[in-house]
Amino acid sequence: MSCPDAARLSLNTATVRQQWKLDQIIDACARHGIRGISPWRDQVAELGLQESARRIRAHGLSVTGHCRGGMFPAADARCRLVARDDNRRAVDEALTLGARCLVLVVGGLPPGSKDLAGARRQVRDGVAELLEYSRPAGMPLAIEPLHPMYAADRACINTMAQANDLCDDLGDGLGIAVDVYHVWWDPCLEAEIRRAGKSRLLAFHICDWLVPTRDLLLDRGMMGDGVIDISRIRGWMEAAGYAGFSEVEIFSKCDWWCREGDEVLRVCIERYKGC
Amino acid sequence: MSCPDAARLSLNTATVRQQWKLDQIIDACARHGIRGISPWRDQVAELGLQESARRIRAHGLSVTGHCRGGMFPAADARCRLVARDDNRRAVDEALTLGARCLVLVVGGLPPGSKDLAGARRQVRDGVAELLEYSRPAGMPLAIEPLHPMYAADRACINTMAQANDLCDDLGDGLGIAVDVYHVWWDPCLEAEIRRAGKSRLLAFHICDWLVPTRDLLLDRGMMGDGVIDISRIRGWMEAAGYAGFSEVEIFSKCDWWCREGDEVLRVCIERYKGC
Repeated sequence: MSCPDAARLSLNTATVRQQWKLDQIIDACARHGIRGISPWRDQVAELGLQESARRIRAHGLSVTGHCRGGMFPAADARCRLVARDDNRRAVDEALTLGARCLVLVVGGLPPGSKDLAGARRQVRDGVAELLEYSRPAGMPLAIEPLHPMYAADRACINTMAQANDLCDDLGDGLGIAVDVYHVWWDPCLEAEIRRAGKSRLLAFHICDWLVPTRDLLLDRGMMGDGVIDISRIRGWMEAAGYAGFSEVEIFSKCDWWCREGDEVLRVCIERYKGC
Repeated sequence: MSCPDAARLSLNTATVRQQWKLDQIIDACARHGIRGISPWRDQVAELGLQESARRIRAHGLSVTGHCRGGMFPAADARCRLVARDDNRRAVDEALTLGARCLVLVVGGLPPGSKDLAGARRQVRDGVAELLEYSRPAGMPLAIEPLHPMYAADRACINTMAQANDLCDDLGDGLGIAVDVYHVWWDPCLEAEIRRAGKSRLLAFHICDWLVPTRDLLLDRGMMGDGVIDISRIRGWMEAAGYAGFSEVEIFSKCDWWCREGDEVLRVCIERYKGC
């Protein structure tokens, strides 16, 4: 396994969202020598889409992903239409930002539903429909399989195998965002990364799994503080042909969101080099 | 899907462990007409093994499982030996109690380790060694695949597929305890239950997945309060030939553990009939 390339570190802006607004985050990336960024839609909307794109370009940052589209399963046709239109806007934004991909958190069960298989069918159909819009526009969609603990409320695509199956089914313009936090436990991970191959591996997100984990959503760890063998998984990504950025994405209500932003970025860089 | 048979409800004693000691739980099962019980080792030790067995027999309860053996991955050979001897004692206890199986929570990463594949090899070897003891004694071992959110600290067998693979590998005397809480999200669940078949399906545990889930370990829901389609999964179990008990196992720090024990059992019975 090679040493991580410092020029291939990207910052998912959620990592310092409690400390800074997007313009400050962009400046901080430049100040710390971080060359990639992955912004969230609400932050882009707050700063303004064109202004966000201008500032990111001004610093020459690579946009490793736009966060996020998805949330396909819906209780009724009206909700589905609202989601469809919002996802198309997300594609447009990703194009304006020059993003590598639009990350899809596909959504879980509609309110009141226990029909997981049905939700998965809605995801399949929703992605297929969005591809009709994104494919001619040239914006790749990246399905992010989420940890099974989010199957009910965030994403019912929970393994790389499911994501690969969807890619097989739906064809060009669709790939996968691999986040170690979500997939590190999967006994099929190495095989499914290999199966995905270079063309489908659109993003690689890193953080760590803490023991104990005190909150299902907001207790992600800094690389090195948990149990994920990040370098091994990165090795599998590289062996499959992935040569893109490693994107740090840490939601940490009680630790990293409470620290000074510059400290967080310094530690991200230091830990990234060691993993 | 048929209606649940009230005579096939079992109580995992953890469900009311904050309210009652084992002798009280046994009496409460009899009082409420619950015909099955699955005790935990610490509760059995507190009451005494022979006394526990005597009281359970006196009420004619079926022991649907003994909770629990496992915890195979160890940091060194000494720890492995300690675990081996303790697991053999658990087999002996299960025999004395007349349990249907010894439930195995196989253990996660040894302290300080990130070697998940290595931990899984240790589980394989540990189960193989325990089978040399349990098989001639006639006590089936039931691997319980645990939710992936417990991969680091409780069990690195996280899917039915892994459990089935282990059964394929290690042969007779080994089966699976299917707990809906751990496996409900798995897109391969129906296929893997079918693959397991009647001979391997040793136990069926029920509770519910709450949205939101506020604690990774101690926020399980009462059947009907969450998103798991229990009747569908029970239908898959029955189609595969399972005709055993449904065992209610709820760890609920802030809700069911705070209620009066008789109320909990009344609601368990009522909800069981509806799911």
